Amino acid sequence: MTTRYKMTLAYDGHLFHGFQSQPNQRTVQGTIEAALKKMTKGQDVSIEGSGRTDSGVHALGQVIHFDYPGTRIPPERMIRALNSIMPLDIVFKKCEIVDESFHVRYSAKGKWYRYHVSLDRFVDPFKRFYTGHYPYPVNLEKMQQAATDLIGTHDFTSFAASGGQIKNKVRTMYYVNIQKDEQGNEIVFDFICSGFLYNMVRILVATLLEIGNGKRPVDDLPRVIAAKDREQVRETAQANGLFLYHVFYEDIPKKYRLDKD
Amino acid sequence: MTTRYKMTLAYDGHLFHGFQSQPNQRTVQGTIEAALKKMTKGQDVSIEGSGRTDSGVHALGQVIHFDYPGTRIPPERMIRALNSIMPLDIVFKKCEIVDESFHVRYSAKGKWYRYHVSLDRFVDPFKRFYTGHYPYPVNLEKMQQAATDLIGTHDFTSFAASGGQIKNKVRTMYYVNIQKDEQGNEIVFDFICSGFLYNMVRILVATLLEIGNGKRPVDDLPRVIAAKDREQVRETAQANGLFLYHVFYEDIPKKYRLDKD
Repeated sequence: MTTRYKMTLAYDGHLFHGFQSQPNQRTVQGTIEAALKKMTKGQDVSIEGSGRTDSGVHALGQVIHFDYPGTRIPPERMIRALNSIMPLDIVFKKCEIVDESFHVRYSAKGKWYRYHVSLDRFVDPFKRFYTGHYPYPVNLEKMQQAATDLIGTHDFTSFAASGGQIKNKVRTMYYVNIQKDEQGNEIVFDFICSGFLYNMVRILVATLLEIGNGKRPVDDLPRVIAAKDREQVRETAQANGLFLYHVFYEDIPKKYRLDKD
Repeated sequence: MTTRYKMTLAYDGHLFHGFQSQPNQRTVQGTIEAALKKMTKGQDVSIEGSGRTDSGVHALGQVIHFDYPGTRIPPERMIRALNSIMPLDIVFKKCEIVDESFHVRYSAKGKWYRYHVSLDRFVDPFKRFYTGHYPYPVNLEKMQQAATDLIGTHDFTSFAASGGQIKNKVRTMYYVNIQKDEQGNEIVFDFICSGFLYNMVRILVATLLEIGNGKRPVDDLPRVIAAKDREQVRETAQANGLFLYHVFYEDIPKKYRLDKD
């Protein structure tokens, strides 16, 4: 008898070699599975993540599920037990017992990624692991205008790094927001999409920054999307600035459905 | 011929063994002096800091001075040159050429330290190097009330860790502010004082938290101060949460002079 747990967690990605287990590397999955093995006194428990964040990428709202063997542990106790044996760079925030039909990947209706970019010539030392860096002039309005071309259902092949195994690259972008945080002299990008392809957010951010900097015309994105050609865009923003912010298992709230305006 | 530079800098203290140079340890002073030696192509330049922050303690507004040999470099170029060769956990923010009568320690009129404490049971992973931790109930009003007893000129012997070499332990506390940041579930302490003794902020924070938690009466501080006895207070809050926020070379602004109300 096993019990399926759905857990929401945050992690600081800068000391992990990404989410997915790899031999001889410190990974989020490996760290959590080792903790679960301790709790079960030796039984292996594998976890599934909503997505595999890359090396250096952070999470504020990653979601995992796993089937815990033996006696059912109440959610509040499961959180405490795991947090007590976790290293300090992973913290579980929410725990629910779910039906076996629930699956973190297949049940997800969308994901929200956030990306921070510092415009300072020299990055605030406290942000150095948590922000991308673009010390060049950028025009916010141009990026905001260009971003509207991303909304809706498109084949995002041009924005997918090779290495992904998924063939169907059609996704629905529900929401894009680009804001300047004056105090921090940084730009914050938010993307909510039905699903993201490999490196998609980082490629989108790099392309939008090129538009903001005047290296590409404001109306370039429809052309790039139509080309379905990764060679149309070259840059990938660094992993540091990327946060998996939230995974939606409910319908995407109306205020984030710019595709239905 | 040398030119005296006054520079303001921020650093993330978590990978430094404190400010002061020590053999075979990575320190803030050692790192800056190595950079200056590169710039002078081999000449030693020693720096003076406004204070020696401990291992793990951070700075948003540390100030140093040094006498740079040879050709005078304009302040803006000095900042860029140093920032270009600094590791990412130190960033210079301001640079001025000053008279030789200026000294970062002797010319200072006061210092501002800030301390962050997380009240969460498990600390936000992104704050783990930048906050103290007190996962117990605290009464904010009690701490605020007790803090008023610190304002004014007192002998702070009871709040000085042994190891300091300074005999006169009389200081003037100009300003104490304690606030709760609801969003982050943390408490932020600000102290502005004519000067701080060894570990003074961390001992004050630990003592105030004891008052907030009801382990000490609200009116305990006048008694502790009068005792001039370090044995009256035992706890020292962890280094992680402490930031050297600002050093005053101008008169302390009126709004921060609670001693003159």
